[in-house]
Amino acid sequence: MSSNNRLIFLPLGGAGEIGMNMYLYGYGPRNKERFILVDAGVTFPDMESTPGVDLIFADPSYIADRADRLDGIFITHAHEDHVGAIGHLYGLLNAPVYARRFTATVTRAKMEDQGRDLDQVIDVAAWPDKVKAGPFEVSFMPVAHSIPEASGLVIDTPAGRIVHSGDFKLDADPIIGEPFDPVLMREIARGGVHALICDSTNVFSQKPGRSESSLPEAITELVKDSTGLVVATTFASNIARLKTLADAGIAAGRSVCVLGRAMQNMLRYGEMAGVLHDFPPTVDLDDAHDIPRDRLMLLVTGSQGERRAASAQLANGKYLGFTLREGDTFLFSSKTIPGNETSVGRIINSLSEQGVDVIDDHSDKYHVSGHANRPDLETMHKLMAPKMMIPMHGEHRHLRAHSLLARSNGIASEIVPNGTMVDLTDDLPQIIDHIETGRLYLDGSVKIGAMDGVVRERLRMAIRGVVAVSLVLEGKDVVGVWVEPMGLPEGGLLDAGLADVLEAEVERALNGTTAKVLKNDDACEELVHRTVTKYCNDLVGKKPITQIMINRLV
Amino acid sequence: MSSNNRLIFLPLGGAGEIGMNMYLYGYGPRNKERFILVDAGVTFPDMESTPGVDLIFADPSYIADRADRLDGIFITHAHEDHVGAIGHLYGLLNAPVYARRFTATVTRAKMEDQGRDLDQVIDVAAWPDKVKAGPFEVSFMPVAHSIPEASGLVIDTPAGRIVHSGDFKLDADPIIGEPFDPVLMREIARGGVHALICDSTNVFSQKPGRSESSLPEAITELVKDSTGLVVATTFASNIARLKTLADAGIAAGRSVCVLGRAMQNMLRYGEMAGVLHDFPPTVDLDDAHDIPRDRLMLLVTGSQGERRAASAQLANGKYLGFTLREGDTFLFSSKTIPGNETSVGRIINSLSEQGVDVIDDHSDKYHVSGHANRPDLETMHKLMAPKMMIPMHGEHRHLRAHSLLARSNGIASEIVPNGTMVDLTDDLPQIIDHIETGRLYLDGSVKIGAMDGVVRERLRMAIRGVVAVSLVLEGKDVVGVWVEPMGLPEGGLLDAGLADVLEAEVERALNGTTAKVLKNDDACEELVHRTVTKYCNDLVGKKPITQIMINRLV
Repeated sequence: MSSNNRLIFLPLGGAGEIGMNMYLYGYGPRNKERFILVDAGVTFPDMESTPGVDLIFADPSYIADRADRLDGIFITHAHEDHVGAIGHLYGLLNAPVYARRFTATVTRAKMEDQGRDLDQVIDVAAWPDKVKAGPFEVSFMPVAHSIPEASGLVIDTPAGRIVHSGDFKLDADPIIGEPFDPVLMREIARGGVHALICDSTNVFSQKPGRSESSLPEAITELVKDSTGLVVATTFASNIARLKTLADAGIAAGRSVCVLGRAMQNMLRYGEMAGVLHDFPPTVDLDDAHDIPRDRLMLLVTGSQGERRAASAQLANGKYLGFTLREGDTFLFSSKTIPGNETSVGRIINSLSEQGVDVIDDHSDKYHVSGHANRPDLETMHKLMAPKMMIPMHGEHRHLRAHSLLARSNGIASEIVPNGTMVDLTDDLPQIIDHIETGRLYLDGSVKIGAMDGVVRERLRMAIRGVVAVSLVLEGKDVVGVWVEPMGLPEGGLLDAGLADVLEAEVERALNGTTAKVLKNDDACEELVHRTVTKYCNDLVGKKPITQIMINRLV
Repeated sequence: MSSNNRLIFLPLGGAGEIGMNMYLYGYGPRNKERFILVDAGVTFPDMESTPGVDLIFADPSYIADRADRLDGIFITHAHEDHVGAIGHLYGLLNAPVYARRFTATVTRAKMEDQGRDLDQVIDVAAWPDKVKAGPFEVSFMPVAHSIPEASGLVIDTPAGRIVHSGDFKLDADPIIGEPFDPVLMREIARGGVHALICDSTNVFSQKPGRSESSLPEAITELVKDSTGLVVATTFASNIARLKTLADAGIAAGRSVCVLGRAMQNMLRYGEMAGVLHDFPPTVDLDDAHDIPRDRLMLLVTGSQGERRAASAQLANGKYLGFTLREGDTFLFSSKTIPGNETSVGRIINSLSEQGVDVIDDHSDKYHVSGHANRPDLETMHKLMAPKMMIPMHGEHRHLRAHSLLARSNGIASEIVPNGTMVDLTDDLPQIIDHIETGRLYLDGSVKIGAMDGVVRERLRMAIRGVVAVSLVLEGKDVVGVWVEPMGLPEGGLLDAGLADVLEAEVERALNGTTAKVLKNDDACEELVHRTVTKYCNDLVGKKPITQIMINRLV
């Protein structure tokens, strides 16, 4: 019987994008596997593909349909792309959520936002402590990243030990949180690692990564050399960086004020979880206004150009009473995530117009990445010496490059994108199934499927414009025609506006057609659609979406 | 009298963005200046800010209103951001267009597309030849860039010599076209340069730029090492790069096939203009299909991820009968322009899914920029030794950094963004006026102003969705109510669809109001708008755009 047991791995999100991490491990006989879920993250919408959408989740249907066989949810760390969906999706999952203390604190806040039961979130100590979840024994393996208490998972299964790396970097001195500890890694690897499931985001970065501890000197020097107000932004959850920035402010003789709720929350969580002890004293907003600008440093949110965050508001003129001016310094202690270049550029240009000196990631001096670069990945492969390496967390190009890297070093590997079920039981990974996966959009207060067509319709309206037509018909008589173009140009050469011309043409078309057409809604609609399309195209070169409403009097 | 004459510079586009270059020089008494226009470029729309828009131009109103005082239009080179608008805007400008032969060939194609008089485009030889245009004498100064016959302009005015750099780089061996020639620059500068108006796009690149001639060896090696089909993309107008790529293919024993109309056109223009002599022999599409894939190299368009170009189509599966597969190589011999990262990433990931080895700009080996980097700009400043330097072609941050660079070297400088009129007559630039400028959108077949609200309405529809409502009223009686939501979710918890619920609520609201409201269109509209907004927000958490059409029976 037990020879029917198999160990499977199925990424639902994160293996096809950077973001939206959600990975499933299963063990047992086919269709009777017990499962654990690792991470429940979000990714963020953009105007190009998801206008109006609030958040994007991996579609959890596969495990939601088998929620009775889910024995636990493990959150590796408290970044949005690993924990942001837990509150939204929890109702579909309903299993205990395990995390280390800081991560659990953030996880509880996410659960609370969505009215979930906070008791489902369970604090767990790190290795060598273990959580038993069905056939799995799971231990949190401290790694360095850009947030406190980031962890990989050591997942012991009847088929052998899995190491799920989580997001990590090789940092011997991350300032806050545990360093990456090769001794610990070797201890974990000692009995043999069956499979390493490994972060791939920085596989294209060719040089070894740098330590968080390489930054304080340069940042302190920068702040000391600044004459006006100094403003710095970074990811709110990068508490080590916040501490480095604040320490630099203090060292330069400035008072430090933390603006932006996300940063204040993260510092509070850090203190609650006991990972943050020695953050320097800060001043509150009221006091900050009384301090001369050359004695003040502000820490603000919005390093990715988010429209409503402090950085964008300062760039646009004013935020909480602060206005920037010639001689001030604005430091992006952050990297611009691909896709955010335009938004960040907009902020930098606005600041430039105000005469502010902007220090951004053109120089490498004021930011380091939280992920393992290519040589660091090879180090991890060597430390773990797994039978197989499955790349996770990356776009397809990252997964492929990471997989090729492992193979070039003699480690078996497969590319396992979202929805691909791989059997890890034996010595070689075997792709055994493809599951329908996808994305859920939080759209207002509702979750919709990415393929539902709602967002596609919005994109079509934005590209083509809309013409709404209201008709009143009585039998074969046209009683009223009303045309309202939306998002369409007036038409440069027209005396009358576009609406007037379309109205006249629709009326003419209806009056020129047969009673048979007029009595048939579909035929009428088709005629009006054709007429509107033709004249819009003739007049302004566009073929709009039409919405035709026929009211019949009886 | 002549003491009233002044020399002015007014950027209409390009000094506030990378793209859309359009610069005006004027000389004469106030309000009687004679003008020349330099370049008439486009910039490209995106979904984030300009959905549905086809092309973006600088608003030429200022010079269009004074077209009788425009003595000439000078096109520095044939890139879209310098020449792309000439056909579209020519009707507003109506002055002779001067360009060197290759540029003039492309310019004529742009004019022909829009039905303009081709005789208005005049071929001009380079320095020391001169064109007299009103009070200006203009000479085309050959520079190196990423397109043949790129030129700066030497503009002699009664107030002194202006050097307008055009887009340029310091390349002693650009493969095709003239090298950057310091001897020529010194000759031009000998009598003194009053003002240098200078390209700023690469001011943040700290190292000296590299020559086009640094590429052939690495590219040839790459192609020789490839085993499957090799596909390479670059900008169609970079004829030197096309030649390098094709030469590399031939050296590797491959036949070369140029796909994509834009590339074929550019090669044809290059031959017509006499700048391209020794492009290697190519094969046509039919023959290419008969050649084994390891003996074939394709040159394709779409290096920026353009949806309809060859690269995107190959990534999506098939293009002109070619399908890529495991072991093929795809080379981006190009840089991804900021803002295009997502589109290019999409292509790379699709190629990765097909097992194609993608070589992109992570390595610097297969592409060099066409613009002068920061140290190169300093070299140009030294060669020209101008009294003042005005930065052009860049976002505000580039203009500012370039201006600060000049000042730090003791050269007077002002930041002169689009719409800023600067008086260059004396030894120091003086900002004297701000003109209302902006952008024109080509939207379908119509030009609209960026501030007209048309595109803003489209964006609002895409973010918020639309609810169209058609009412039929007879006096105070509600005869019909029809509600059509567009781009809105159905509402997860509803038994009835959103449309049904809204229709019922609108009907209830109308039936519950007073005769006074029902008889008044504005009041009715307001009531319906409020009702739709409230229930959409309650049901799906969104506040849509409403379009309410009231039909009254009499």
